[in-house]
Amino acid sequence: MSADTPDGRYWNAAKETRPRAEREAEVLGLMQQQLAYVYEHLPFYRRHYDAHGFHPRDVRTIEDFTAKVPVITKQMLRDDQEAHPPFGSYVGRDPDIARIHGSSGTSGKPTLYAISRRDWSYIADVMAQGLYTCGVRPDDRVQLATVYSLFMGGWGALLGTERLGATAFPIGAGETERQLDLMYRIGSTVLITTPTYALHMLETAAAQGRDTVNSPLRLGIFIGEPGASIPGTRHALERGWGIVVRDMATTSEMTPWSTNAECEAGNGMHVMQDEVWTEIVDKNDSTRLLPDGQSGAVVYSHLRRRSQPMLRFYSGDESHMSYEPCRCGRSYPRLPAGVYGRLDDMLIIKGANVYPSQVQRALLSIPGVGVEFRIILERVGALDEARLQVEHAPDLPRESRQAHIAELGERIARRLKTDTSISFRVEVVDHGSIERSVSKAKRVFDNRPKFRPG
Amino acid sequence: MSADTPDGRYWNAAKETRPRAEREAEVLGLMQQQLAYVYEHLPFYRRHYDAHGFHPRDVRTIEDFTAKVPVITKQMLRDDQEAHPPFGSYVGRDPDIARIHGSSGTSGKPTLYAISRRDWSYIADVMAQGLYTCGVRPDDRVQLATVYSLFMGGWGALLGTERLGATAFPIGAGETERQLDLMYRIGSTVLITTPTYALHMLETAAAQGRDTVNSPLRLGIFIGEPGASIPGTRHALERGWGIVVRDMATTSEMTPWSTNAECEAGNGMHVMQDEVWTEIVDKNDSTRLLPDGQSGAVVYSHLRRRSQPMLRFYSGDESHMSYEPCRCGRSYPRLPAGVYGRLDDMLIIKGANVYPSQVQRALLSIPGVGVEFRIILERVGALDEARLQVEHAPDLPRESRQAHIAELGERIARRLKTDTSISFRVEVVDHGSIERSVSKAKRVFDNRPKFRPG
Repeated sequence: MSADTPDGRYWNAAKETRPRAEREAEVLGLMQQQLAYVYEHLPFYRRHYDAHGFHPRDVRTIEDFTAKVPVITKQMLRDDQEAHPPFGSYVGRDPDIARIHGSSGTSGKPTLYAISRRDWSYIADVMAQGLYTCGVRPDDRVQLATVYSLFMGGWGALLGTERLGATAFPIGAGETERQLDLMYRIGSTVLITTPTYALHMLETAAAQGRDTVNSPLRLGIFIGEPGASIPGTRHALERGWGIVVRDMATTSEMTPWSTNAECEAGNGMHVMQDEVWTEIVDKNDSTRLLPDGQSGAVVYSHLRRRSQPMLRFYSGDESHMSYEPCRCGRSYPRLPAGVYGRLDDMLIIKGANVYPSQVQRALLSIPGVGVEFRIILERVGALDEARLQVEHAPDLPRESRQAHIAELGERIARRLKTDTSISFRVEVVDHGSIERSVSKAKRVFDNRPKFRPG
Repeated sequence: MSADTPDGRYWNAAKETRPRAEREAEVLGLMQQQLAYVYEHLPFYRRHYDAHGFHPRDVRTIEDFTAKVPVITKQMLRDDQEAHPPFGSYVGRDPDIARIHGSSGTSGKPTLYAISRRDWSYIADVMAQGLYTCGVRPDDRVQLATVYSLFMGGWGALLGTERLGATAFPIGAGETERQLDLMYRIGSTVLITTPTYALHMLETAAAQGRDTVNSPLRLGIFIGEPGASIPGTRHALERGWGIVVRDMATTSEMTPWSTNAECEAGNGMHVMQDEVWTEIVDKNDSTRLLPDGQSGAVVYSHLRRRSQPMLRFYSGDESHMSYEPCRCGRSYPRLPAGVYGRLDDMLIIKGANVYPSQVQRALLSIPGVGVEFRIILERVGALDEARLQVEHAPDLPRESRQAHIAELGERIARRLKTDTSISFRVEVVDHGSIERSVSKAKRVFDNRPKFRPG
């Protein structure tokens, strides 16, 4: 356990507050060591670098790293595991594997994660630093409503909670009523889960007649989905639970190296640039770093991980970064709006670009709208049709119910047209009629015929 | 990590092989320390001991411990948590709680377990010793098909696997087809789960057309249920998976202090008497220790745990013990037939005592019988009626199917009559028609009216 300032403000003050130039001098050294290591010992990287005419010695500055190191993608990792089972030829030199986990495997076959004992121990410190940044302290009781199975998300949060020295209550996701009974009985002060599940817990607690605003919780930390940085979702969680909301979402392939964490200033997640070097690059040119504030593709690099290290992993996520000083005193840059959408989640509807998170943001700003919705896309003749099914709030007035619902539907359609330029056909459905998820919600059903190039 | 003999036979040779007298000298000291600690600091114990006129100084020998220390029961713990929420007045002196878990809560309200940081770290060693005794080694890949949620079972096995230095793959229970895909893909060498789930995995693997006898597994360690010490179940697992089967079942209230573990001799679980002092006492007199080989009630005492220590916990389980020397060289006594049934699982049918495990043992000895069954008890008039639904094996011959099934039913009924003296009405049902459990199977449905005393 460590919290090395008298007022307990930082997990590691020297590391978190040092000047950028000092940090980046260390970062450059780490980059050079990692590149030399992967080139010498990890055939996956050597082949890739050789094929691109890149050699580690070409990196003499941090700028070189962006300009010269070829990116890798999830598909490349998947192909390499296929060719070099089970963990790929990027598993590391003589790894003493402590843990095996895997991706959700949307293609049906999960990508396997192998983490060495050294890395598993060290990542606990990184996770503890992140949770401490979000406000967790050793005297907290932390309810971890996260799935403990193949996927990594919850395991990293548990590891960090243990290292930080707080009490861990890793109950898993599901059995919501029992989960709530235990939250109140134990007096959990911190909840870690996905925004989707926290909203579902809120509804269930309200249905049980609980005073959620005065629950034992004081802090919620949200992982697995970008929701906590979406103002509407954040406010619904803050108001409903009476808690401080902090975002700690990252790209699932990077967990448990969850190096994004929001401080008490609440103005976006800090990025631990001395653990995972995070770049925002041009979507069409991954060698071009974007300036502060400009939105682009997120590229991640493990600076210290030796088992399955990701170097310039092109995540498919979109965000923007800011080096504006933060009043918390940390010198790390921030992602002011979180990681706000997967580029590959972006929908093209009637020729326009729309993120599901935009729709969510719009809905949460309208009183009377519930928390669950679905976007259903169909092709009618040659045209896209966009339907939105959305629940009304549980407290809909009993009288003139139909008129209320009709009016709500019109307001939603107008708002979406303004925010996304798309005319949605809106169906307001009963509260509770859309199936709840215990982890990530599936909200887009794209039934249009696919174009298959080639 | 520790494996302190040149041939790696023991986790801790000095501890495991020392003479009984030497061990018991230490045990007596630990008992006296624990009694003094709980009497001074844990109001639950002080009240209980005062009410029984017992004082810790009364224990001068190991025999005194059995003869003088009053037992505690699950109901007493439950009542104490009700009166002193959330963890009871036996939680420990200033406990720095690392983990909160809970019982399955058959009464609807789980008993809460709170484990201090010191105890959580030390129990990892105990679990590692147990897994090492069962045959796990640091180069194993251990698939932990156990639920990670409120209940403790799987968490203890994971903790021990980590401390032992093997690779942990804690995938959880469920999603059986994916679980099997990953077992073969990763090359898991050890499986830890319940006997019920391992049998279900076996059936699923057979349905997938896999060669289970030549699976990557070499060893199965079974927890959560007594099945692995029941010869029929053990043989089905050994033959089906082509593995060595080792039992590590204990009473759920004691996990993760799972101090029973079967060695390479395969003749019952060793009892780590220097961690949890385990007594077999008269069912009707808990102050009377039973001699070697005689069956009775199991009473457990934590010798080192300081947070929520159990001292003379009357588990409700039944077993017998043997101090016969074991060829493995460990001086710990053994439970030659495992922990073979809960006294409170015992059914009284038509006035006769029957354990569900007896029925299971009988069924597994009959060729053509599948692995799943249910006992359904009803009251018809003033009489008990006992029905048994049991699946036939998947490979039932196609011709004369009805005749085969009828004949099978008769054989089963005859066998049960012989083994249990009860006439069961047997219904042979289709393979796969009885719902599978991912953890402990519910096999008894007692629909008889209950007598409620008082």
